[in-house]
Amino acid sequence: MLKATIDADTFRELIDAISALVGECRLHVSESGIATRAVDTSNVAMISLELDAAAFQTYSATQTEIGLDIAKMKNILGMVGKNDPIDLELDAEGRKLSVSFKSYRYSISLLDTKTIRKDPNPPTLNLPAVVKVTGEVLNNAIKAASVVSDKIAFKIDPTKPAFTMIAEGDTDNIKLELGKDEIEFVQVAEARSLFSLDYLKDMGKVIGRSNLIEIQLGIDHPVQFLFTIAQDSGRVTYLLAPRIEAD
Amino acid sequence: MLKATIDADTFRELIDAISALVGECRLHVSESGIATRAVDTSNVAMISLELDAAAFQTYSATQTEIGLDIAKMKNILGMVGKNDPIDLELDAEGRKLSVSFKSYRYSISLLDTKTIRKDPNPPTLNLPAVVKVTGEVLNNAIKAASVVSDKIAFKIDPTKPAFTMIAEGDTDNIKLELGKDEIEFVQVAEARSLFSLDYLKDMGKVIGRSNLIEIQLGIDHPVQFLFTIAQDSGRVTYLLAPRIEAD
Amino acid sequence: MLKATIDADTFRELIDAISALVGECRLHVSESGIATRAVDTSNVAMISLELDAAAFQTYSATQTEIGLDIAKMKNILGMVGKNDPIDLELDAEGRKLSVSFKSYRYSISLLDTKTIRKDPNPPTLNLPAVVKVTGEVLNNAIKAASVVSDKIAFKIDPTKPAFTMIAEGDTDNIKLELGKDEIEFVQVAEARSLFSLDYLKDMGKVIGRSNLIEIQLGIDHPVQFLFTIAQDSGRVTYLLAPRIEAD
Repeated sequence: MLKATIDADTFRELIDAISALVGECRLHVSESGIATRAVDTSNVAMISLELDAAAFQTYSATQTEIGLDIAKMKNILGMVGKNDPIDLELDAEGRKLSVSFKSYRYSISLLDTKTIRKDPNPPTLNLPAVVKVTGEVLNNAIKAASVVSDKIAFKIDPTKPAFTMIAEGDTDNIKLELGKDEIEFVQVAEARSLFSLDYLKDMGKVIGRSNLIEIQLGIDHPVQFLFTIAQDSGRVTYLLAPRIEAD
Repeated sequence: MLKATIDADTFRELIDAISALVGECRLHVSESGIATRAVDTSNVAMISLELDAAAFQTYSATQTEIGLDIAKMKNILGMVGKNDPIDLELDAEGRKLSVSFKSYRYSISLLDTKTIRKDPNPPTLNLPAVVKVTGEVLNNAIKAASVVSDKIAFKIDPTKPAFTMIAEGDTDNIKLELGKDEIEFVQVAEARSLFSLDYLKDMGKVIGRSNLIEIQLGIDHPVQFLFTIAQDSGRVTYLLAPRIEAD
Repeated sequence: MLKATIDADTFRELIDAISALVGECRLHVSESGIATRAVDTSNVAMISLELDAAAFQTYSATQTEIGLDIAKMKNILGMVGKNDPIDLELDAEGRKLSVSFKSYRYSISLLDTKTIRKDPNPPTLNLPAVVKVTGEVLNNAIKAASVVSDKIAFKIDPTKPAFTMIAEGDTDNIKLELGKDEIEFVQVAEARSLFSLDYLKDMGKVIGRSNLIEIQLGIDHPVQFLFTIAQDSGRVTYLLAPRIEAD
């Protein structure tokens, strides 16, 4: 059972964060809010997302799972005004979701949760280096790197300290070095890992809207980006596996 | 003979209204103004349009017919500033139309009116239900329906009264119900007909700019949309044939 | 050797002016500034460009030649803010150009100047008719002509005097006649030449931003467009060969 009202912009943040990685997902609904964890089709990137009941204008739910077509939901959200409240209601059998706003009422068939990939297990990670930066700085760096390469290295030099992003193409390269003025060093440790820009570009569009991103790094380890949505009533973690550097 | 001046925005309204349905048309020119009636290539939609001499800044004409390439005229209008006056002048043989604005002078070859489909006869229709709504509401409903389906049903329930638009896709559907607060019921009667969204989407772009649209409906009958252009100096009627509902 | 700082907008003017004609060029660097001369791949259009040292915020150079990938430079400039200063520095061997702005540092491999076409010789031209007009008027005329044709004739009638642009398509034509109110007649002489709009459209995008364009014309001769960039610290000449008029 789910019956809730949410403003369009908050719902859009939720859907956009998920759609950067997957086209469909299994949404866990409970008394305290909704959550999802999904990996992309190539098993390279993972999203974990929680949205508290407090993010909703009204919220009433019991524990259930629903299969959501994220791409379809994006299309519907294109019809909703910026500040319209959206009413969400699950039907008795849990097969259809009603999405209402103004005088409109969409009825959406849900996906059979059995056809959606099992929830991935959260990996046990030891990422000793932690920095915080604005989403805009991170997204701009991702876009700048894309001009010359399809991969980017994130490095932390604990001696300066400095956070460096390096993208090396066949003939050109770009380097961005951020010091204490531009980035907050929460936990200083040596780090260096290489990542595919394909995934980062999609994540970057979502990340770019966030005031503050926590970046967790190791040596040839995944990177994690942690940020909040819905005025801190929601939490998103993007995890991206590293690429092996060819010598 | 035709020699007239019209402001660019009014001329654009005229051309846009026609181009939603047909790429060329036969324009009837007379002392009192211009008019056209045309059906689209699939014989599903019809436009009737009249523009009074009063819509022009200056207007002088005798009875004649000209064949107009609407798509070409749209391209030329793309070069005209918002408020530029446009001078239109037919040459002596009625083969070329001169379109002048600022220091520019286009000379356009007209189409041979014999090569353009004959004017359709206005069908005799009995559409008992009549409502009025803003163009924006109608166009938004058309766009919202397009997300889930390629057809839309317009219904009037005389008991409430309520005007309902329903689009049913393979798995999803959308319903929009408008009551007395959002729509004016001019003639209340039962109505229900199904229409192709393909045609409605093109009409919707034109209709969406109009303050008030009159909708005339019946049961499994065509729909008619009536609205004015050129500060009420022009009248447009779109007619759309119904689709047969497959069970 | 080259070490210079230039503001992003000025550098963008330089790159845009070159990229309208060629995708790569040989840049001549000297103590007094930079210069290039290049013809397009079809040998129909030529650009000559000089940018004085005064156009740079700081400038220090010795004589050298570098091969620049213009398309790549455009991509990088897409990442630079409107008013960011850009640091340019050639490495010791003259093989790589460092392009830095804010905390970013791109390192670009230069092209081997031996692989770039030799500098064209400046043709000896006798173009007796000279007029001056705003870039906007010229660019709008080019766009208006493109609606009906793929070529345009520039004419000067010394008796009126009048500068006329005529584009004749298969069925339609457009004529733009400019008199003393809209154009400055610097040297009045009879002129009439026909040009391909393909090239003019690309030039027009650059020319359209310029306050004043000098147009030099003859009879069945090339046209030259002269204008300044970088607050008059740079000079651009576009030369376009005429098309032979088929009768």
